[in-house]
Order: sequence, then structure tokens, then C-alpha cells
Amino acid sequence: MKTITLAQGNGGEENRQLISELFFRHLKNDILQKAEDAAVVEDGTLAMTTDSFTVSPIFFAGGDIGKLSVCGTCNDLAMMAARPCYLTLSVVLEEGFETRKLEKIVRSIKKELLENGAKVVAGDTKVVPKGSVDQIFITTTGLGEVTVPGISASNVQKGDVIVVSRDIGRHGAAIFAAREGIELESAITSDCASLWPMVEKVIETGVVPHAMRDATRGGVAAVLNEWAEASGVCIEVDEGEIPVSETVAGICELLGFEPTALANEGTFLLAVRPEEAEKVVEILRSFPGNEAAVQIGEVTDSYLQKVILRSAWGTKRFMDLPTGELLPRIC
Amino acid sequence: MKTITLAQGNGGEENRQLISELFFRHLKNDILQKAEDAAVVEDGTLAMTTDSFTVSPIFFAGGDIGKLSVCGTCNDLAMMAARPCYLTLSVVLEEGFETRKLEKIVRSIKKELLENGAKVVAGDTKVVPKGSVDQIFITTTGLGEVTVPGISASNVQKGDVIVVSRDIGRHGAAIFAAREGIELESAITSDCASLWPMVEKVIETGVVPHAMRDATRGGVAAVLNEWAEASGVCIEVDEGEIPVSETVAGICELLGFEPTALANEGTFLLAVRPEEAEKVVEILRSFPGNEAAVQIGEVTDSYLQKVILRSAWGTKRFMDLPTGELLPRIC
Repeated sequence: MKTITLAQGNGGEENRQLISELFFRHLKNDILQKAEDAAVVEDGTLAMTTDSFTVSPIFFAGGDIGKLSVCGTCNDLAMMAARPCYLTLSVVLEEGFETRKLEKIVRSIKKELLENGAKVVAGDTKVVPKGSVDQIFITTTGLGEVTVPGISASNVQKGDVIVVSRDIGRHGAAIFAAREGIELESAITSDCASLWPMVEKVIETGVVPHAMRDATRGGVAAVLNEWAEASGVCIEVDEGEIPVSETVAGICELLGFEPTALANEGTFLLAVRPEEAEKVVEILRSFPGNEAAVQIGEVTDSYLQKVILRSAWGTKRFMDLPTGELLPRIC
Repeated sequence: MKTITLAQGNGGEENRQLISELFFRHLKNDILQKAEDAAVVEDGTLAMTTDSFTVSPIFFAGGDIGKLSVCGTCNDLAMMAARPCYLTLSVVLEEGFETRKLEKIVRSIKKELLENGAKVVAGDTKVVPKGSVDQIFITTTGLGEVTVPGISASNVQKGDVIVVSRDIGRHGAAIFAAREGIELESAITSDCASLWPMVEKVIETGVVPHAMRDATRGGVAAVLNEWAEASGVCIEVDEGEIPVSETVAGICELLGFEPTALANEGTFLLAVRPEEAEKVVEILRSFPGNEAAVQIGEVTDSYLQKVILRSAWGTKRFMDLPTGELLPRIC
């Protein structure tokens, strides 16, 4: 009997297989098949996206499930250059959940909506008996107005430069640390944040990124592999240029993970024309927390649909789509 | 310490309180406050709605969680006279869930999308460790194109006639029977069905209902009370006219529930002008399963914001918003 495994929810290879072999196969249509961060509908004017949040613990350094549920969905809109406008909010609560915790979560939602200029227009609340769900799951769906058309995972072009908006892996590391009760000399906080303000600023200067994607489940490695495959290009990255904090690097050693496979919730990648890279990096660095924004690689045609990691010693290896269980309930 | 209770998810009084005192209070805005079945956005052209489905058992007579997750959301759009166009689909799976069950559910989703002429444009799949969720929860969000403006729970007018689309309480009764393993002489199936085809037909004939609402959690009693309150009218209903099958009536005796408090998933109420009632009933009856469609009452001004139940013996009593635990995980 085949059963669903944790790996099938990892944002990596097994997750991709489940989605394509089961959901896409039965429900296929032009829009769904594009597999962008958000679906573009209504003659390209609106973008729509959804995410369920099952993160554990529900409160963590740098955020909580409420903040995350707004960031996650609004960020997917932002990655299509869509201004977040309307959100729906569906909450499943476990009987016995503390009301004051729910209130704290709703306050976080309110605060993060303001960051995006969005509002909740519809919602649903279900309460299930004790043991049917672990505390609280939240699903948000976002509708946004597309400000720049054409941004797409399949629009990455040879010669483009890859920029990362900040140091990577903080969300995955923070959740892991919180869950395992690891005491760290230097505390680690999640990067959980809304990206629309940064994206808006980039677009206002006239830059039109070819692709943007936030590096959530599956991390930077998943995004780069998805782009390489969808655009039929090779992406070459300098390992030494990828910004990783010392704490995250330390946790990665504990975990046996690559920082590039760790989840982020407020970190994104851009593929831009080389002449625009410097301006983009400058804008990103002007936002607090994003001082490490940097160019990490470029798009070539040496190994099509592959991502290559160049080490500081001049060696090269493929960076694959992450596989395995990674960290369940990371978002 | 205040904690969340099952009653707060019942679709009745306690549910209304939680939503207004916690979610509406913090997240309030013009659109959310209207508390319609679906939010009308983008200058009145689009309707948006969301629902999480946690039904247990996930397969029941007359449907499954997949069919339900499409019907539930598309019906909320239909109730605003919005043609269902785009759905998002977010699935939370328990590790170890049988893949063939998931496949069966996805097939049901596909079939029901066809009934509505809608497509899934975006999705999300999360897998959580065993014990973190009971089997599978699904959240769908729908976006639809409003075909007739102005339909609203606050638009019910004195002199209007109340029509119900079929016999009531089947979903609640079917789930209860399935859960308790009750063997019934005459099997009971859920009314789970898509309402858009019926609504489309009604609208095509030129009828403009003042209000429409499907009687899900909280049943017919919840809808009528919400209308009476939002529109500031009195709704008077003839108890003897409300269609209830013998099997549902029998299960209600077992449960100690009123059929009007039982959930439905393919049954709706309309408030229409008296001269349109006959035509509406005729259209509804032409759809298989809806042969019991009938006028059950009318709108007066005798007790504002109240619903009155008139018995066959001429006595009158208030029909209140349901309270208490009702049936958890009914949808």
C-alpha cells in the first residue's frame, strides 16, 4: 500500500513529483501548469495564490504562524510583481486552544497586513475535537494586482545575473533551534518578512526582473533548479558569494544540511539583466536586515536545466533539487 | 484560562461571537464587515470566498471531502450570483495517508469542478507528521464573476417570499449516521451538490433574488436568523411547509436536534418577490433531487430581527440561532 511520506511535503524533488503526478495530472489547465509562485488570471491583471501554514512551534524567534501566513501568501504575489490587495483567512483550531494565543496570532496578522497594504475580505473558522489537529493551522489565499507583466520562472535568460536579497537559511535554522531547544551563543531569528515593499521599490526604479521567487521550502537550491528547468538554461553560482550567517552555518553542521536547502520566509532571488544588478543590490541593501544582498551567479548555457555550484577552489558540482524529509512543519 | 470550544465552530451563536469579537474586531474593513457568503471586490465585478474542510469521515454517502471542498466554495460564490471561475486548493496531509485515497479525492475534485465550469489555478500541499492532523484537511478559495449585483443578506425586504431548494438536513444526518455506524432501513445520502447550475437557470429567467444563502453549518435556522438580523426584518416560516425526509426526521429524534439546525451542503434559501416565487420553485424542481423545493414563509415586520416558526396548530415561537456543540467536523 502506497502512503504519503513526509518527504512529499519537503518543497523538493518528492514534493514536485506528488504535485505533478497527482494534482497536475488530474486538474491540469493552462494556468495551473505554469507552476508560478502565483497564478495570473483575468487577462493578466490579477494574481492569485494560496498556502497552508502548519508551522511548529507556532511562535518562534522572528515571527509566529499569523505573521507567516500573511508574509507567505503576500510574498508569492510580490514575486509576480503583484501588489497584495485581498486576502482570505481560514483557520482550523484545536478544541482547547488558548484564546489569548489566538488573539496574539490575529494581532500579528493585522500588523503584517499593514506592511503589505492588504486586507482580509473573507474568512472561515473551524474548531475540531482535541487530537484532530495540532493547535492551529492557517490557510491564506491572496489576490493581487499585477504591476509588471511577464515575470516568470520560464523567463530567465542567458546573460542574466542572479541576485539574493539577504543571508540565507534563517527560517529553517530558527525553527530547528526552537524545536530542539538548542541554546545558541548568538540567537538566531527567522527572516520572516513581507517582500512587497522591496519589490515595489525595485519596480519603481524601472527595473523589470526576468524572474523573482522567494526561497521557501526547498530553499535557494529549489528555486534555482526550478528556474533552470523551466527556462532551459544553466545557472552558475559561486558558493563563496552566497551569504550565510555564522549561526546558520553552525546549525547546518549540526543538521547535516546545506544552507541552500534550508527554508527562508523573507528571502528572495532575482534574475535581472547584468546592467541592472548593481542598482537592484543597492535598493535591497537599503532595507534593514538585507545588508547582505549580493550577486551570487549568472545564467549561462553550459549545462542546460542544471544548476552549477562553483567552489572557492575552482571546482564545480551540480546543485540538485533537495530530497528527503528535510524539516517537516517548517511553514 | 479561556480556551476555544467546539461550540465556537458550530455555525451558530458561539461561532458568530468568536468571529465578531476576535477576527472582525482586529481585521475590520468595509468588505469583511458585510459578512456575506462571499466578499465582493474589484468594483463589484468579482466575488471571493474561502472555506476549510475537516469533515469526518472523509468518505460518506453522497460525497467525500474532495467533492465537498469544491461544492462548499463554489456554492458560496453562487449565492452571490457569481459564476465560479478560479479555485485554489490547499491540502494538508497526514504522513501515512493512503495515496489511493488521495487520488480518489482528487478525482472527485475534478468531477465537481466540471459541474461548476471552474478550474484550480493554484495549490499547496503540506505533509505533517502522523498525529498532527487527522488524515486530510482541504482549504479551497474561489474567485467568481458577479453576474447580478446587489444580492445580499441585508437586502431581504418586507413582502418577500422565502423559498427552500429541497428537503433539509441531509448532510448533517448522513455524516452523523456514517460516524455512529447507524444502520438505517432507508439509507440517507448527503445533499452535497453544486448549486451554480440552478442559480444560473434562475438568473437566466430574469429573476433577481434579494438574497440567497446555502444552509451549511447552523442549517436553515442560522440563515434565516442572519437575514432577519442583517436586513432588520421579521421572517415567518410555516413549520409544516419545511420539507424534511422521514429518515432525517428519524435521525433528528435520535440526536435531539431540530432539522432546521442540521447542516446541508447543497440546499439553499432564496428571498424573492412574491410574484417570482412560483417560477423559482418550478425551476428548482426541474433539477433532480430538488423535487421538494417549496415556499416556506414570508418576510414581515411583526418582530424585527426575529424568525418566527408557525406550527400547524396555529401557535408561534421564535426560531433562534442554533447554540451548543451541534456536530463537530460536519464540513
